[in-house]
Parts: sequence; C-alpha cells; structure tokens
Amino acid sequence: MPTTLLNKDKLLFVVDLAGTFLFAIEGATAAAIAGLDLLGILVLAFATALGGGIIRDVLIGDTPPASLRNWRYPALAFTGGAIVFLLHHQFKTLPVEPLLILDAAALALFAVAGTEKALEFNLHPLVAVMMGTLTAVGGGTIAAVLLAQVPRVLRADVYATAAVVGSAVLVLCRHTRISRSWSAVAGGLACFALRVAAIVLHLNLPHA
Amino acid sequence: MPTTLLNKDKLLFVVDLAGTFLFAIEGATAAAIAGLDLLGILVLAFATALGGGIIRDVLIGDTPPASLRNWRYPALAFTGGAIVFLLHHQFKTLPVEPLLILDAAALALFAVAGTEKALEFNLHPLVAVMMGTLTAVGGGTIAAVLLAQVPRVLRADVYATAAVVGSAVLVLCRHTRISRSWSAVAGGLACFALRVAAIVLHLNLPHA
Amino acid sequence: MPTTLLNKDKLLFVVDLAGTFLFAIEGATAAAIAGLDLLGILVLAFATALGGGIIRDVLIGDTPPASLRNWRYPALAFTGGAIVFLLHHQFKTLPVEPLLILDAAALALFAVAGTEKALEFNLHPLVAVMMGTLTAVGGGTIAAVLLAQVPRVLRADVYATAAVVGSAVLVLCRHTRISRSWSAVAGGLACFALRVAAIVLHLNLPHA
Repeated sequence: MPTTLLNKDKLLFVVDLAGTFLFAIEGATAAAIAGLDLLGILVLAFATALGGGIIRDVLIGDTPPASLRNWRYPALAFTGGAIVFLLHHQFKTLPVEPLLILDAAALALFAVAGTEKALEFNLHPLVAVMMGTLTAVGGGTIAAVLLAQVPRVLRADVYATAAVVGSAVLVLCRHTRISRSWSAVAGGLACFALRVAAIVLHLNLPHA
Repeated sequence: MPTTLLNKDKLLFVVDLAGTFLFAIEGATAAAIAGLDLLGILVLAFATALGGGIIRDVLIGDTPPASLRNWRYPALAFTGGAIVFLLHHQFKTLPVEPLLILDAAALALFAVAGTEKALEFNLHPLVAVMMGTLTAVGGGTIAAVLLAQVPRVLRADVYATAAVVGSAVLVLCRHTRISRSWSAVAGGLACFALRVAAIVLHLNLPHA
Repeated sequence: MPTTLLNKDKLLFVVDLAGTFLFAIEGATAAAIAGLDLLGILVLAFATALGGGIIRDVLIGDTPPASLRNWRYPALAFTGGAIVFLLHHQFKTLPVEPLLILDAAALALFAVAGTEKALEFNLHPLVAVMMGTLTAVGGGTIAAVLLAQVPRVLRADVYATAAVVGSAVLVLCRHTRISRSWSAVAGGLACFALRVAAIVLHLNLPHA
C-alpha cells in the first residue's frame, strides 16, 4: 500500500523534525544560561540538535551529512534557538518534568534512527549500537565541549545508557528476524521506558 | 585572457596564504599566553589557521581536505607558530589595532572562500552561509576547545556575525545573477566593513 | 614466502590490538579518576584507544574508519574500560614506571602505523608525519577535551614530539630507499628511544 507507506514516511519525517526542534531548544537554553550571545545560542541549538547525526554520517562516509543536504533541519534548529533567545525568561518558568519526558522521546527517536542508518550501511551490530548512541547523545556532548564542561552524559544519570539499551534491543530484534518496523518500535520503547524509569526513580550508573 | 586569469588565481593563492599565516600567528600567540610548549604552539597555529577549512572539507566530503593536499598550507602554519615561539616577547609589544584590521581582512577572505566552495559543491544557500562562517571561525573555535575555554566567538563581539553577513551577501549577490567575482568582492567587503565597524564602535550581539 | 608474510601480518595485528588495549586502560583510568560513571569510562577508553586513528581515517577519506570496520577494536577498547571499572583500586597500586615504558611502546606503534597508512594514501611526507603523530596522540587529546582539560601533550613533556620524530625518521628512511619494514623499525625505535629517554631524564620541550 504505497499510500500508507507515504504516510508512514511523512509521519517519521515530522517526528524527526519534532525531535530536532526539541533538542535545539534544550541546547539553546543551556547556551543562554551559560551567557552566550545570540550567535552562540544559534550555534549551540544547531550543534545539540544535529551534531550527533552529523558525526555519525561523517564516520559512516555519507557526506555531506543528511542534515546538511536538507535545509529544513538547520532552519528548524536555528528557529528553535531564536525562540529561546526571544522567550528565554518564559522558558525558565516551564515545569521540568514534562520536558524531561519529551526529551526521553526524542532520545529514543534519535537512537532508533541512528541504529537503523548504521545497519543500512552494513556496519557490525556492535558498531550500529555505538552509532545509535552517538546519534542520540553526540549533539549534547559537542554542546558541552563548546561550553568547556564535562558532558553530563559521561558523569551521571541513566541517559546515554538508555540509548545504548534501545539501540541494542533494536539490533537484537532484527537478528531474530522481527520486521524492521517492529524492531524499531521495540528499540524505541526500551530506550524511552528505561529513561523515564531513570527520571522517576533517580537511577544512576555506578562509578569506579 | 588566460594571462589575467593566471595572475588572478596566483593573487588569490597568495592572499589565501597570507590569511593562513596571520591566523597561525594569532593561534600561536594564544597558545604561548596559555603556557603551551613548542609543540602545543605549533598545533594551535595549525588548528587556528586551517581547522575551519578542514572541518568544512570533511563535511562536504572533499577528503583529504585541501590544506592537507597542498603541503604549503601546513608548512606555512607551522612557520607562523615557530616565529611566535621565537619572537613571542616582541609580538606582545605590537600595537593591537592594526592587527585587528588585518584579522578582519583574513576573516572576510576565509568566509568568502568557504562560501564559494560550498556553492561549488551545490549545497543549499543556507548551508553555504554556514560553511563560509565555519571556514572563517572554525579554527579559532577548535583552538579554544583545545585550551579548554569557551570560544570567544560564541560569547561576545560581532565577529562570527560579520562572517555570516559576508557569506549571506555573497549568496544573495549570486542569486541576483551578479558575477562570481563581484559577488565575492561584495561579500568580502560586507564582512570586513561590519567587523571593522564592530571594532571601532565596540559592537556586541545581544544576550538572551 | 606467504607463510612468513601471514605470520608477520598476524603479529602486527596482535601488536596493534595490544596497543589499543593499553591505551584503552589509560583512558579509562583517567576517566575513573575524573569521577565519570561506567558509561563515561567506556567512552573514554574507546576515545583514547581509537580516536586518533578514527580522525586520521576521516581526514584521509577512508570511511568508515578501520577501527569501525573491524568490531574487534571497539570490543577490545570496551573490555579495557570494563576491567578498569572493576579493578580500579588495584590499578592505582601498580608501579608507574613499567606502565610508562609500555605506553612508549604503544606510542611508537601507533605513530608508525599512522605514518605508513598516510604514505599508502600518497599524502605528502610532511602530512604523513602529521598523520602519524595524530594517530599516536589524537586519542589522548580527545579524551582530555571530553574531560574539559588542556591536553597534556600540548603543555609539557616530550611525548607527541617523540611521535613526530619517529614518524619523520620513518619517512626519511623511505626516501633513502630503505625497505618498508626496516623504515618502520627505525621509526618505531626512534620514537620509543626518545620517549624513554624523556621519561628517564625528565625532558621537556621549551616554552615561548
């Protein structure tokens, strides 16, 4: 049914743009808090939203990266940055918990998209999990480096770990010949559920 | 007129090398002030002068990057670093204002060169402006990251903004069918003029 | 003699894995000391062991990078990270000097491997020396950036310098038509000897 397929692909594109927009808002907010100017806010919005996927594509050898071949991605990231610049004080009063849940959804989406792309390019399952995780948390890591901070995902919290688990579930499902769509759903749900559990239960990974 | 063309290309190459040399001097000076050793000074000279163009070429998919295909670029950057190493104390006594004007010229040159290359590779105008800006300020950003500092261009000053404006002017001129050469001149002048105005008038971008 | 060749290639592969493992241990130890969690330790192990070679391959245009085409490399790096996570307190009591000698051997090995690969891809000798050095010290540099520290190799110590010298000796030997194998041995020994001398004699590069 080509119509359904078209609708599904359109839905995925819209969902992908929604995740990009949310990550851009988060990166821009971190930049505003760190006292960057308008340009710094736009750069951090872009890097947070699209940096992970860009590094993934450079490593895979798919250049120019997908988000530089479609101007809608950078345009959306910059729009998110501009909104934070204009409405920064309103953003500070938003309740945190719903934002964290939305962020968990975007994390799951990016992890699934990155893992799928790596598998499409015939990378080893272990490397596909790494690429899924990189897609999900790479942007935030670049943003932290630009702010001269140790990336939060390396220090605390079950965040990148949820991306690892979601990506691994997707890869395992594929190996047991579950369909592409259901594997993606399973991986995404695993990531989302673990991340939400970590938020609610204040889970942390152990330290050495 | 092939002779004129040859001369123009030669002139552009010499101007490009001059910009590389100046950016290398600046990066090396920042490294010397931060207390790096000889090797650190050479690395920072290289990264500041050529890092922006290298990341641009990696993103575009033009590898090895142009500045690694022509040994004159790294050799010149290292020469700039070595000169700063030997004459650091003399450099400190140089007047700052003329150096800032030279730096504005190099900024304009790199922004124009980066935007033109992105357009050659058929990237979207928005992405071409991003690539021009990246070429101009990417090296300084890498240098700041290596020094564990928040890049100055993200925090204050109309610097990267001048590169954005210059790149955008070039792209707009091309769209109105102005010739390649005149578009480059217009873009370069816009970047240079805005940057010099920012120096003289102490312009800053607004913060959130 | 194909059998000998096979054995030599196998030996090289084992030695390469050993170097990867050692660098992973070092990166993970730095992460544990900096208070990162399990995931942070694994990321730092991977970045330190394989980051230099990955950047080299991206610059050369050989993507996906070699260490992402062979899952044994990331698997080994993660194993090194996991061991440090489990046995961190035992590691702290190990004597430092033998570890530094092993590290010098790994440095020499990575410098030689990186220089050879760059020459294979027909890069200029100067650029080949840069790629050898990048392979040897790039991973540690990325690790430092992720820890928001100024990379040690840029500040003090004859460390990257030993990689530069070893790579340069290899390139020079090749130019005097010494065989590939003997050039590699000469370059590796030069790097190793200079690094060990620097450890024993507490050599430092001059500052500006």
